Amino acid sequence: MAGDGGEVLTRIKGPRDLDRLGPEQLEQLAGEIRTFLVEAVSRTGGHLGPNLGVVELTIALHRVFHSPQDRVLFDTGHQSYVHKLLTGRQDFSHLRAKGGLSGYPSRAESEHDVIENSHASTVLGWADGLAKANQVRGKDDHVVAVIGDGALTGGMAWEALNNIAVAKDRPLVIVVNDNERSYAPTIGGLADHLATLRTTDGYERFLARGKDLLERTPVVGKPLYETLHGAKKGLKDFIAPQGMFEDLGLKYVGPIDGHDLEALESALQRAKRFGGPVIVHCLTEKGRGYKPAEQDEADRFHGIGVIHPDTGLPVAASGADWTSVFGEEMVKLGHERGDIVAITAAMLQPVGLQKFAKAFPDRVYDVGIAEQHGAVSAAGLATGGLHPVFALYATFLNRAFDQVLMDVALHKCGVTFVLDRSGVTGTDGASHNGMWDMSLLQIVPGLRIAAPRDADQVRAQLREAVEVDDAPTVVRYSKGAVGPAVEAVGKVGGMDVLRAPDATVPSPDVLLVSVGALAPMCLEIAALLDKQGISTTVVDPRWVKPVDAALPALAARHRVVVTVEDNIRTGGVGSAVAQALRDAGVDLPLRDFGIPERFLDHASRKEVMAEIGLTAPDIARQVTGLVARIDGRFEDTADPAGAAAVGGEAQPAEAARD
Amino acid sequence: MAGDGGEVLTRIKGPRDLDRLGPEQLEQLAGEIRTFLVEAVSRTGGHLGPNLGVVELTIALHRVFHSPQDRVLFDTGHQSYVHKLLTGRQDFSHLRAKGGLSGYPSRAESEHDVIENSHASTVLGWADGLAKANQVRGKDDHVVAVIGDGALTGGMAWEALNNIAVAKDRPLVIVVNDNERSYAPTIGGLADHLATLRTTDGYERFLARGKDLLERTPVVGKPLYETLHGAKKGLKDFIAPQGMFEDLGLKYVGPIDGHDLEALESALQRAKRFGGPVIVHCLTEKGRGYKPAEQDEADRFHGIGVIHPDTGLPVAASGADWTSVFGEEMVKLGHERGDIVAITAAMLQPVGLQKFAKAFPDRVYDVGIAEQHGAVSAAGLATGGLHPVFALYATFLNRAFDQVLMDVALHKCGVTFVLDRSGVTGTDGASHNGMWDMSLLQIVPGLRIAAPRDADQVRAQLREAVEVDDAPTVVRYSKGAVGPAVEAVGKVGGMDVLRAPDATVPSPDVLLVSVGALAPMCLEIAALLDKQGISTTVVDPRWVKPVDAALPALAARHRVVVTVEDNIRTGGVGSAVAQALRDAGVDLPLRDFGIPERFLDHASRKEVMAEIGLTAPDIARQVTGLVARIDGRFEDTADPAGAAAVGGEAQPAEAARD
Repeated sequence: MAGDGGEVLTRIKGPRDLDRLGPEQLEQLAGEIRTFLVEAVSRTGGHLGPNLGVVELTIALHRVFHSPQDRVLFDTGHQSYVHKLLTGRQDFSHLRAKGGLSGYPSRAESEHDVIENSHASTVLGWADGLAKANQVRGKDDHVVAVIGDGALTGGMAWEALNNIAVAKDRPLVIVVNDNERSYAPTIGGLADHLATLRTTDGYERFLARGKDLLERTPVVGKPLYETLHGAKKGLKDFIAPQGMFEDLGLKYVGPIDGHDLEALESALQRAKRFGGPVIVHCLTEKGRGYKPAEQDEADRFHGIGVIHPDTGLPVAASGADWTSVFGEEMVKLGHERGDIVAITAAMLQPVGLQKFAKAFPDRVYDVGIAEQHGAVSAAGLATGGLHPVFALYATFLNRAFDQVLMDVALHKCGVTFVLDRSGVTGTDGASHNGMWDMSLLQIVPGLRIAAPRDADQVRAQLREAVEVDDAPTVVRYSKGAVGPAVEAVGKVGGMDVLRAPDATVPSPDVLLVSVGALAPMCLEIAALLDKQGISTTVVDPRWVKPVDAALPALAARHRVVVTVEDNIRTGGVGSAVAQALRDAGVDLPLRDFGIPERFLDHASRKEVMAEIGLTAPDIARQVTGLVARIDGRFEDTADPAGAAAVGGEAQPAEAARD
Repeated sequence: MAGDGGEVLTRIKGPRDLDRLGPEQLEQLAGEIRTFLVEAVSRTGGHLGPNLGVVELTIALHRVFHSPQDRVLFDTGHQSYVHKLLTGRQDFSHLRAKGGLSGYPSRAESEHDVIENSHASTVLGWADGLAKANQVRGKDDHVVAVIGDGALTGGMAWEALNNIAVAKDRPLVIVVNDNERSYAPTIGGLADHLATLRTTDGYERFLARGKDLLERTPVVGKPLYETLHGAKKGLKDFIAPQGMFEDLGLKYVGPIDGHDLEALESALQRAKRFGGPVIVHCLTEKGRGYKPAEQDEADRFHGIGVIHPDTGLPVAASGADWTSVFGEEMVKLGHERGDIVAITAAMLQPVGLQKFAKAFPDRVYDVGIAEQHGAVSAAGLATGGLHPVFALYATFLNRAFDQVLMDVALHKCGVTFVLDRSGVTGTDGASHNGMWDMSLLQIVPGLRIAAPRDADQVRAQLREAVEVDDAPTVVRYSKGAVGPAVEAVGKVGGMDVLRAPDATVPSPDVLLVSVGALAPMCLEIAALLDKQGISTTVVDPRWVKPVDAALPALAARHRVVVTVEDNIRTGGVGSAVAQALRDAGVDLPLRDFGIPERFLDHASRKEVMAEIGLTAPDIARQVTGLVARIDGRFEDTADPAGAAAVGGEAQPAEAARD
């Protein structure tokens, strides 16, 4: 048990140290890496299954190609742990924590890392660009891109393949890491084709493996999977002489046993020598070598929290979370309304749709890693008389902006988008934060956005959303545990009043507009302001787009308006409120607090929120300064931020500085 | 010559009128439609070539399928003129003009129209959704989707095919309208494959045709085209027994002569009866039957202005336009810097890159209708040491938002996006307006946006943009003719002062922030305000993101700030300026004028601008009202808009009302 690395692994300081290892040492290294991964990731949480599947492949890649001159690129990036171990990064003690290693490639960590973002299907486009640059600059370095079979279902992969295929003189190696599943069993015609690809020099092995595949019984999508992988396929199809990739003009090598180091190196060497675009098709097993993962047919320990390394069981069970509140309400809605259908982009379980899928298997669609298709097919479903609910992570909606705008909104389709993991998510780093949605979607005409503040509101607002049949609706909520219920004390227009100043105050100082899950924080801000003698009304608009028609008049009864949202400040809810006030001729001072316009490094959610000044004390201090400036009640405060505001200097708020 | 329709055509009031026509009448109808199209589109401008190519196909579709119960869907929609003629719309006198027929399908026009937006590659996703809805609702109506070979290069098409292929029991007919070119000869591995697809019952005809194709000499991309369509292909490949589509699990029928009515009907009937997803591969000729189009190898009269019907020559030549100013400066830059490369998404000529392509054929990349790939491969090119310039229409950048954000900006890549046709474009309708870019891109950390006001500024700002190597830059300009030069009279920070009030005015009333091509309008507004005794400073920030650091202090010397932009108001430049002022503690009244948050119907640019209140008199009137309210100088003005502002009622400005 060598949790800190085994005897071979600890001697690997960089990829060239692999060159001097013989076959036995390489096998030992692979074993040591698996032991290391299980122990390390059990302690910190992270992506375990995908990394266990690419141990041999990553070793082979770094023996055949010479990074960083050769570019070794990983799609999505969560399978780069082995790559990190081989490129001088073996301290996993603070993986995905503040100051520790990123859970994805990171150029700040190593010259061996290139693509940082965790959005799938990008690697072939990057590779095409890098290969073109090599050609223009007369360099003969190699570019190798590792992509999973799931990521091949994304449209970007197709666009790239179509471009790569025509440049016969541009060397580019595409390694398809085929584990027949990305997050879950891969769906679609491509999965079908991958299973029928021809074999060059090892078709007996492939046939044996194909049979084995058919006997597996995935938890999710079983009938579909069987259809894809065998039921209608005879032996002939398994050794079909023409492959789709070759139809496109791409040289094809495979399938290769992705856990056979010798076979992998041999295939990669052939591909490297070829001199043009070539696909190397590797068959791997997600979770390979770790029993609990191998036995988990649902997602093979794709991403895990802290677990016990021997059993694979979670160390701490979590309470009710936003996702499951949504998932359970969807089942109820499904029973009540036969026209409600659900869509997921290869994330049935993570977005909480598994119960709906079990109850209504004919009314759920897994479209693959294909957010564009999820959105445009939703427009078709709505036009066909149904009400689709497309549940996805907030950050991935960015992929479907044009379809939300041009297909769903322009056509006035009743489609509900449910955005999970919105706001700061933290540990997965810059590209997983759901911090753009409320700005991005503000500019879609007719679309409405709900930001529920607690579990009751998730249920209520989801129901309100699916009642809308002539416009897109959005319900967005945070990651993880949902907080306690926050009761309304009154109503103004469609807005919930969460806190009203003493009735004896005819004109309160501050109208505080709270967005979604930040309601408890906003109540805390109000309490802090109260201690300073500043009276505050807190409202939760519930629907943050469009701005509630009653808001300007309510604002006009206050002296200052403050908005707080867990979304990028630029063009967010605060900006929309400010514009609504301007349009109504209510020219009050307003301050909008939110996420600054920059990419956020990985750390816990709480650490990130503190770092960007999105905390009750920070905001209360700044609002105090603003009120002081306006009416002179707190002149010459010793607080620097307040002082700056009093002085009227061009001193941006902390949350605005970046 | 029957410009108003021939004797058969005029009797077609709806698609069922086609049922009673015999073969000879159908041939006559096809001829009458071609005559009609050439005459009508010559007079109004519009998409001619694509519609001449689908005359027989559209007739056959409407004979075999029964719209509107069966859904006949067109991708991109500019090839729907014949469909309009057959579904009761034969008055083309105001095509694409205010109150006349749209140049695309329009649900307001007809129950036979479904998809309105002009963005390519969406139709298969719509079809998938509609077919799923039919299945859930137990309806056995048919769905048929017409898509060009060019649009198949878009990632959305791939995502849809992958989904459609697995549902063997869901009827869906995909008609591939293969004219070997979309806007220009189609690029990519798919084009290669389409040319090698097997023939079922007509391969001799196909082979003869294939030979004919090879002898064509397209103006653009010749070497590539030859590689694709013949040089490396033997006869064997032309009748390859396996096709990519069948690899995916899609039944394939074809290739069919797309101008042979009988063959078309027979193939479509077979496809209709099949009961599952099936592809019908039709070979058509863009511009068929119109000599000037057939002889134009570049784009076959894809979209035209007003022309003489006999010669095909433009009736009026246009002056210097934004596009050609860019195109010429790119050639100069290409000579100066060997690291500059250009990218287009299947629109080399429309975005002005043809001269660059001629001068530097190895440094230009046509990626197909694949904006996502254009952006992500640009990130790769930049990381590889080059500076890519990706030129595209502003509206199509929406497709690549996630790639601009996550691949280019997160990785701090020096990529320049040049957005043509930004702002109101008018005649092409809602989905062609470039009205989202300055809001969408505001939320991309680190990205900078230039909005040049005239030709000199296009040249200057393009040069400034390509100097930035650690962040994405954007240069956005309008459609059509570029106006006269607008000289600066001074400089504040990085901003050009276009008009300064008399030096004797210590504190002018209005700071007017002008964006891009609206500079002349802003100067006109200032002149109108001057007549009212309102002193105005006009600045052009040139770079509208980030907000110039000198702007807040300049604004603080005025009493009111006004912004004017040809972009959606929500989250646009005005909102960004307002936020910058708030952050600097400059709490002045501000009014932001721009495009209201709604989809705009087709009309001329001037008509649209008037309708949305984006004119100098409208804006001057509202600013006058605001100033009057502030200092009481113009109390009780008779102007209703002004009066509303004076009264401080919640009365939104005209440009804000929608």
